[in-house]
Amino acid sequence: MVMGIEVAVTIRLKPGVADPEGENTKKALNLLGFSNVRAVRTMKRFIIELEGGAHGDTSAIRAEVEEMCKKLLANPVIQDYEIAIEAETEAEPEKGVER
Amino acid sequence: MVMGIEVAVTIRLKPGVADPEGENTKKALNLLGFSNVRAVRTMKRFIIELEGGAHGDTSAIRAEVEEMCKKLLANPVIQDYEIAIEAETEAEPEKGVER
Repeated sequence: MVMGIEVAVTIRLKPGVADPEGENTKKALNLLGFSNVRAVRTMKRFIIELEGGAHGDTSAIRAEVEEMCKKLLANPVIQDYEIAIEAETEAEPEKGVER
Repeated sequence: MVMGIEVAVTIRLKPGVADPEGENTKKALNLLGFSNVRAVRTMKRFIIELEGGAHGDTSAIRAEVEEMCKKLLANPVIQDYEIAIEAETEAEPEKGVER
């Protein structure tokens, strides 16, 4: 039985940083007739599946994922990150396409 | 006083659809020494700010945002979307950079 843990990392632009993708999405929605769209902001989400369980201690996992954000996932100059430890999973021997 | 409502739309790949960005992120994390990363999945999030309040009835808003997903935000061939009505906001006359 292989335990795993899922961590969700949300990367968003810091307040005050321009979001051209969001602005263009807003414009496109307005042009499509959705005139009540006032603003659109975009963000990125990573679901990271880690080996091993938390064993009740999530602080080590949080610290590790924070390191991942600093080293790879986020650009600290313009982006903030948010880490949420989602669920402990039991890895199944085979994965079907469910849901 | 202008009311507004924030809707979060999460766009994710359907099960079984390849996620090369996630796979490459996993490889990069492994190379950086995070050897316990088993898988990474990526998704996109839009926060859409709409004019007007829900007035207790969110179904019309949900239907409208679903229309936005179908027409622009998601590719129904490979992507699923999830709509969450987040919060009613009161638009302030001026916006400072808080938080």
